[in-house]
Amino acid sequence: MSRFLSSRLATLEAYVPGEQPRDRRYIKLNTNESPYPPSPAVLRAVEEAAGSLNLYSDPTALRLRRAAADVYGVDPEMILPVNGSDEILNFAFMAFCDSRTPIAYPALSYGFYPVLAGLYGLPRQEIPLRPDFTVDHRDYLGLGHPLVIANPNAPTGLCLGLWEIEEILRANPDSPVIVDEAYVDFGAESALPLTKKYGNLLVTRTFSKSHSLAGARLGFGVGSRELIADLTAVKDSTNPYNVNAMTQAAGVAAFGDNGYYMDNCRAVAATRDETARRMREMGFAVTDSRANFLFVRHPEISGTALYEQLRDRGILVRHFSRGDIEEYNRISVGTPEQMEALVAAAGEILRKH
Amino acid sequence: MSRFLSSRLATLEAYVPGEQPRDRRYIKLNTNESPYPPSPAVLRAVEEAAGSLNLYSDPTALRLRRAAADVYGVDPEMILPVNGSDEILNFAFMAFCDSRTPIAYPALSYGFYPVLAGLYGLPRQEIPLRPDFTVDHRDYLGLGHPLVIANPNAPTGLCLGLWEIEEILRANPDSPVIVDEAYVDFGAESALPLTKKYGNLLVTRTFSKSHSLAGARLGFGVGSRELIADLTAVKDSTNPYNVNAMTQAAGVAAFGDNGYYMDNCRAVAATRDETARRMREMGFAVTDSRANFLFVRHPEISGTALYEQLRDRGILVRHFSRGDIEEYNRISVGTPEQMEALVAAAGEILRKH
Repeated sequence: MSRFLSSRLATLEAYVPGEQPRDRRYIKLNTNESPYPPSPAVLRAVEEAAGSLNLYSDPTALRLRRAAADVYGVDPEMILPVNGSDEILNFAFMAFCDSRTPIAYPALSYGFYPVLAGLYGLPRQEIPLRPDFTVDHRDYLGLGHPLVIANPNAPTGLCLGLWEIEEILRANPDSPVIVDEAYVDFGAESALPLTKKYGNLLVTRTFSKSHSLAGARLGFGVGSRELIADLTAVKDSTNPYNVNAMTQAAGVAAFGDNGYYMDNCRAVAATRDETARRMREMGFAVTDSRANFLFVRHPEISGTALYEQLRDRGILVRHFSRGDIEEYNRISVGTPEQMEALVAAAGEILRKH
Repeated sequence: MSRFLSSRLATLEAYVPGEQPRDRRYIKLNTNESPYPPSPAVLRAVEEAAGSLNLYSDPTALRLRRAAADVYGVDPEMILPVNGSDEILNFAFMAFCDSRTPIAYPALSYGFYPVLAGLYGLPRQEIPLRPDFTVDHRDYLGLGHPLVIANPNAPTGLCLGLWEIEEILRANPDSPVIVDEAYVDFGAESALPLTKKYGNLLVTRTFSKSHSLAGARLGFGVGSRELIADLTAVKDSTNPYNVNAMTQAAGVAAFGDNGYYMDNCRAVAATRDETARRMREMGFAVTDSRANFLFVRHPEISGTALYEQLRDRGILVRHFSRGDIEEYNRISVGTPEQMEALVAAAGEILRKH
């Protein structure tokens, strides 16, 4: 820390992304990427965009918003493309919260929410989960301030039903309700159709998991025109050209190939369910994940030991060092072959234990 | 504006980027882009990166920081790559200013500074220029709070000498001094070497103008390890994967081709000087710009009329509707052919006037 840092940020705790080690090749199941490559149309679109990179990207991302509007079934004015969905969360926290307007979220969820709250000095309401890690939607009724819920939740993969989301929306008519749908395409019900009915709903989406574009950085905010206008003003006040031209082109092409990506999501979901079945047979407790990862623990081996021994065998999973989930690991769902290797390694570790 | 927007932002005035009209093809001299395409190595690097976009980009941008370090002559730990240089300005305002720590800048400069100050509710010290638009560096000595100076300044293109920057650094030892070098490669002296001597110096750079990558969004902050550590913490708290994989690869390749881009900058500077000479012959007042744009007015035609009549002729320049410069237009320097067309059109407009 320099002596110039504002005292406001003296206790800042930055988000720690999943490790990206370079010491050897790993089967990388720690950051929830898609194991499948982008479609050929995306590669062609990127190549074409690269030729005119000397010109600025469209700051309004009009073609991309139109392509998104077609797939999401809303107007282009209800969509803000962003440099990864972390950016839309950042804009929303900045726009809708302040020192007198707290933000609520589940006490176990995406680790970026408390980081953003810390950055902006926001009061936080961290709402406990049930002992089985499910979210009780009744805890979110009538809060009277903004809230964010990941659906499916991370790192558990557990979902709320659409009716529960709708009850939360109805019970918080005067506060923005952010539904973070980073993982929705792997098996949860999307709240996108509700954006036309509820002016307080902001749905956030990412192409990092479902659309094989983690490296391109592309996310979306979807909500009422008024909400999106606010968030666009924040975007224009922090980074007017936030989405580069190659990523805008890649996004348009990916929406055009949406069937390919939805097939991939179904394949990942099938691999997830088969992997979960086999891990339960091995004695693992596995949450009923509807996301592209599994959240597991085994009664006979600590979370840290499993993480380390998988790592020794060249398989990288995500272990979180917080007390309530230290016995767990989050395992991204890769190809069937990668998950075969994971199951074999886990079996070997348990036998030697 | 939605009814959910924080009252803190009620008076937010977002930055307005240069227009990107789609009604016809223009000679586009309004956003200071390079008229020259990216080098072939950049195109190859982008194509290669596109194949593995399903994986996240390196959040530490290590290869890119190493390539930048070689060219900038500093350590990789003194560099933070960003999603366009607006992002590093945003991080710096967030990190080093607050409601009790004002930001100072020239009263006529890059329009994004007051936007950021407004977003964060910062007290502002807007320091008047001399009547000839030059900055008097003595106005910036001993301010006692952070300041930002664009060198060359926008929209005038006028420079401070390195000795003046150094006096400002020495006279503000306890405050960050941000030197925005967006346009430095077209003829000003860079303060980069001073980053090793002054812990309070942050130099910001962009590849949008000099390196033909406006559409890729790539900028850099360069400063002491402590300053960069602070800014990296803010980056990791708002958007950990801020620079996408294609742009990181493009940046590495562009640094590898630095000679090509510096040749382009020299060509643009020569075109600028020749255009300025001809416009002065036509009676224009033209500032002594060291940037890739000219800032001009003519005693016989208003700034608005010249802007509109150039636009009617298919040439787009930038007109700012603020009182002190409403008689001026800012004209980006394109190819010699584009500037030939500009001079011809301006001559025709003046004759018919």
